[in-house]
Amino acid sequence: MGNIIYVVGFGPGDKMYLTGQAKDAIENSDVVVGYSLYAELIKKIYPDKVYITTGMKQEIERCQICINEALAGKTVALVCSGDAGVYGMASPLLEIMENEEVEVVVVAGITAALSGAAGLGAPINHDFCLISLSDLLTPWESIEKRLRAAVEGDFAIVLYNPSSHKRKDYLMRACEIMMDAGASKDRICGYVENIGRVGEKKEILTLEKLKSTEVNMFTTVFIGNSLTYEKNGRMITKRGYK
Amino acid sequence: MGNIIYVVGFGPGDKMYLTGQAKDAIENSDVVVGYSLYAELIKKIYPDKVYITTGMKQEIERCQICINEALAGKTVALVCSGDAGVYGMASPLLEIMENEEVEVVVVAGITAALSGAAGLGAPINHDFCLISLSDLLTPWESIEKRLRAAVEGDFAIVLYNPSSHKRKDYLMRACEIMMDAGASKDRICGYVENIGRVGEKKEILTLEKLKSTEVNMFTTVFIGNSLTYEKNGRMITKRGYK
Repeated sequence: MGNIIYVVGFGPGDKMYLTGQAKDAIENSDVVVGYSLYAELIKKIYPDKVYITTGMKQEIERCQICINEALAGKTVALVCSGDAGVYGMASPLLEIMENEEVEVVVVAGITAALSGAAGLGAPINHDFCLISLSDLLTPWESIEKRLRAAVEGDFAIVLYNPSSHKRKDYLMRACEIMMDAGASKDRICGYVENIGRVGEKKEILTLEKLKSTEVNMFTTVFIGNSLTYEKNGRMITKRGYK
Repeated sequence: MGNIIYVVGFGPGDKMYLTGQAKDAIENSDVVVGYSLYAELIKKIYPDKVYITTGMKQEIERCQICINEALAGKTVALVCSGDAGVYGMASPLLEIMENEEVEVVVVAGITAALSGAAGLGAPINHDFCLISLSDLLTPWESIEKRLRAAVEGDFAIVLYNPSSHKRKDYLMRACEIMMDAGASKDRICGYVENIGRVGEKKEILTLEKLKSTEVNMFTTVFIGNSLTYEKNGRMITKRGYK
């Protein structure tokens, strides 16, 4: 073994969301590399592994550490919350990887769209879009264009990164854009904060009420399509139109 | 225990894709209910459980069986391939559920968009849409509208149910619509057949080549966004535009 980097999606954080493949990858690794905040979640499950952690926005440094460790003969687990390939580390690693002697294996995990949906009922049980509201790497114009296209296509929509300290009003702006694009103010929406973790909080509400709701950066937001409805406290998007 | 229905997404089929939560749900159930073809995959992992299986398109009958078993005091696992809430059984069950004494717990699983993406590299590492090409429950006009909106929003796109015996030309029609909506014929695409199962097959190719490719019903198709590229045999969608 060695010379391998597993890019591992570990889901919301609790051990119960790990797949067998993710467990094997972490257990077989000599070193676990990750963003410090999320690596703490894995440390609780695997306290005896060797960890190398870096801060937020240091994605490229993190990838370079993995490559160096793998070139030194190690088996490396680069861990990501959620899925490895949905706003995850699979893409930055593969972008900078130039060493044919290092094998990269992407290990899928439960992304927040899936774990959050399970908590709310069945909000994305038909065609849907994932859109991140973070404009760190994407111009706001592109985000706005996608929000409009998603409403025009009558997709259910999942919003990642709906808020941060610097972007407190982004969810409100997104709601306004979706209404302007034709989504009714009564559209059924929902959000889940701290999915599967201590302090989990969820609510089903209208788009209008969502617009004036402040959520934090650990929240995933769901916008129904035109036929989504609430029943017995669950958000339900039908599998079809017929 | 009893009076519980777990709607369990078990991923592509192999044991390694099961989460701990899915394993617990199946192991703690008195009876496992599912579509016969996919229940076979779970039988290989858990040969000693009690199974009740039904044929394709008998979703409502399957849900009713679960409700009856749960009302009789059983703990039931309603199993779905992929995720329980992405074109899965969470929605039909919650739609017909009228019995407050039965608790429904949705257990998220690895949907084909995630497992297929892991096999191809990082094709959906930024905003993306899932669209099913099946017009059994959705009029083709809605599918076409979504394909156009997805291209106009420059989303990466994942196509589920790209083909069947009766719909051999649907992928070709979808490719034509996406090109007509502005996707370049050189757009990087990929597909994975039998993800994580015997006979897995994958290919990265242009949208033009995809248009003339015949895939089967066990295939998941990925269309890149305008910046998706191929490198060292991997399909990569960057995390942002900057």
